[in-house]
Amino acid sequence: MRKIKVVQYGCGKMSKYILRYLYEKGAQIVGAIDVNPDIIGMDVGDFANLGVKLGVKISDDADRVLDECDADVAVVTLFSFMSDIYPHVEKCVERGINVITTCEEAIYPWTTAANLTNKIDRLAKECGCTVTGSGMQDIYWINMVALVAGGVHKINKIKGSYSYNVDEYGLALAKAHGCDLTKEEFEKTLGHPDEVVPSYAWNAAEAICSKLGLTIKSIEQKPVPYIADKDVYSSTLDKTIKAGRCIGMSAQVRIETFQGITIEEETIGKVYGEDEGDMCDWLIEGEPNVKFSVDKPATVEHTCATIVNRIPSLLTAPAGYVSADQLDEVRYMVYPMETCLREE
Amino acid sequence: MRKIKVVQYGCGKMSKYILRYLYEKGAQIVGAIDVNPDIIGMDVGDFANLGVKLGVKISDDADRVLDECDADVAVVTLFSFMSDIYPHVEKCVERGINVITTCEEAIYPWTTAANLTNKIDRLAKECGCTVTGSGMQDIYWINMVALVAGGVHKINKIKGSYSYNVDEYGLALAKAHGCDLTKEEFEKTLGHPDEVVPSYAWNAAEAICSKLGLTIKSIEQKPVPYIADKDVYSSTLDKTIKAGRCIGMSAQVRIETFQGITIEEETIGKVYGEDEGDMCDWLIEGEPNVKFSVDKPATVEHTCATIVNRIPSLLTAPAGYVSADQLDEVRYMVYPMETCLREE
Repeated sequence: MRKIKVVQYGCGKMSKYILRYLYEKGAQIVGAIDVNPDIIGMDVGDFANLGVKLGVKISDDADRVLDECDADVAVVTLFSFMSDIYPHVEKCVERGINVITTCEEAIYPWTTAANLTNKIDRLAKECGCTVTGSGMQDIYWINMVALVAGGVHKINKIKGSYSYNVDEYGLALAKAHGCDLTKEEFEKTLGHPDEVVPSYAWNAAEAICSKLGLTIKSIEQKPVPYIADKDVYSSTLDKTIKAGRCIGMSAQVRIETFQGITIEEETIGKVYGEDEGDMCDWLIEGEPNVKFSVDKPATVEHTCATIVNRIPSLLTAPAGYVSADQLDEVRYMVYPMETCLREE
Repeated sequence: MRKIKVVQYGCGKMSKYILRYLYEKGAQIVGAIDVNPDIIGMDVGDFANLGVKLGVKISDDADRVLDECDADVAVVTLFSFMSDIYPHVEKCVERGINVITTCEEAIYPWTTAANLTNKIDRLAKECGCTVTGSGMQDIYWINMVALVAGGVHKINKIKGSYSYNVDEYGLALAKAHGCDLTKEEFEKTLGHPDEVVPSYAWNAAEAICSKLGLTIKSIEQKPVPYIADKDVYSSTLDKTIKAGRCIGMSAQVRIETFQGITIEEETIGKVYGEDEGDMCDWLIEGEPNVKFSVDKPATVEHTCATIVNRIPSLLTAPAGYVSADQLDEVRYMVYPMETCLREE
């Protein structure tokens, strides 16, 4: 038994939680990569406030970091879309390093980024490693919904509604949500009907279909801008978004399946005002109906905890791109990470 | 591919749902057993209002029913305790028939009925079949709690509170909950501290510990009678329970573990007044806290749907007594039951 060796690929907001969770679960941090000049050269222990130095410095030379250690896993926390993370994932996979990423599209990228995902799938098999996406969606928007569905005799429709505070996920995500755009700018870009950008809800809803064994007949997404009715300060943008401009968006996804089950999901990402909290509400209509919810989920912490708790099922999965709906159950780790690896 | 053959062992209230769900999922009912003279000889299709006759009659001769068909599974819906179902389960197991039961103790009987469970475990292995308990607890009180815990970094305490209407589960359960006893009678019997009768919450809480890998240091249960403040009619007892008498009980279970995690569960079983619904509320205290709930769950339908949806994971499990925390994920069945059997 030896510790699981992890490279943190992307040292932003989320990585501070992930690094601390990894460390507390007994993982060994063997490398950290970021291009932010403010943190390059910083000891990872200092960066993540672990209370101890780890002797591992944040570096902007990804190839060198990956070549000069023998990592089991790279935790990639960089961007929201597969096309953006692809070159970074490729660097890991071609070295045989397993990858888990918070990249939102990566939760189920089989159709929205089919070509890149199939390339990673093939390369990962050639190199004997596994790639997956995880985060809040993994449990609370996919696997929990499928598990609750296991107590239902006949499903007609699955409806989900969830929200998150755009301010907590960094600049890339805020821009992808149209923050600080005018309504007109939003309509010309994110709201434009000819180039639908798949939202969390799109990929998560496809993952539910995959998990339940449903074949998608049609999928539609309506992007709806959230316009501020008063000035709202965004810490990520470090500016006040004026009333009348965009503070985020809701994406309403509707899937019809050949099995007659409809999936409707709405994901609301916006800069919160005071007293607002995340929502995570579900309704399965059928025999019987079942309504369940997570009350103001701590989306950032759940995302980071799920990423870390996913590592054992990532390491025991077959090689290839294995999306979260196909991995073994994610489990709370009572014991150090290496002891949570199950014999196959 | 052939249909899964099922014997319904116990034809009470719950079995009407189970038989219909089984039939609609493509199972083949090959036998039905009950001692109630009102229904002996009745066609199972008529009994369960399937709209068609199945040609299978309800019989009180269990041995003959089990000998004169080749069942894959017996669904045992008889009693709440292992000692009561034991002889019936034994009849099935010694014939190599897999068993799934709604028996409440059976959800995790490894300590409360250790001797009988170990005997069944051994016999089932000798006879090459699998035995399990399932029902509402399986998903909503055990596996859903464990899955949600998979998104938590550090757990300090798990608190659960759930209720059900005693009137919906037949006479055996109503008596086990002290219905129509006086407070004094309750205290002398169910409330007596020297012979703690394990409640649902006891077994479900032990199952959570098993699923999470926790070792129990101490377990305590406080039985608390629910006294009617006004007359309440019980359809199961077919009488009005007078104000001042018992309409059910709450069992408060507290487990301390060697891993420092506390489990507190309260299960409230009582005859409901008007407008009352079931509850199923959970709180995991830790980093982060997570609060989730199922809103007025349809406990009877969930119990029966879970029993039926559990059959594929029962049939692919290794031989022996395999409790619900150890089985593969329970899944919604989109397709007929036999197509849901996964290759191992």
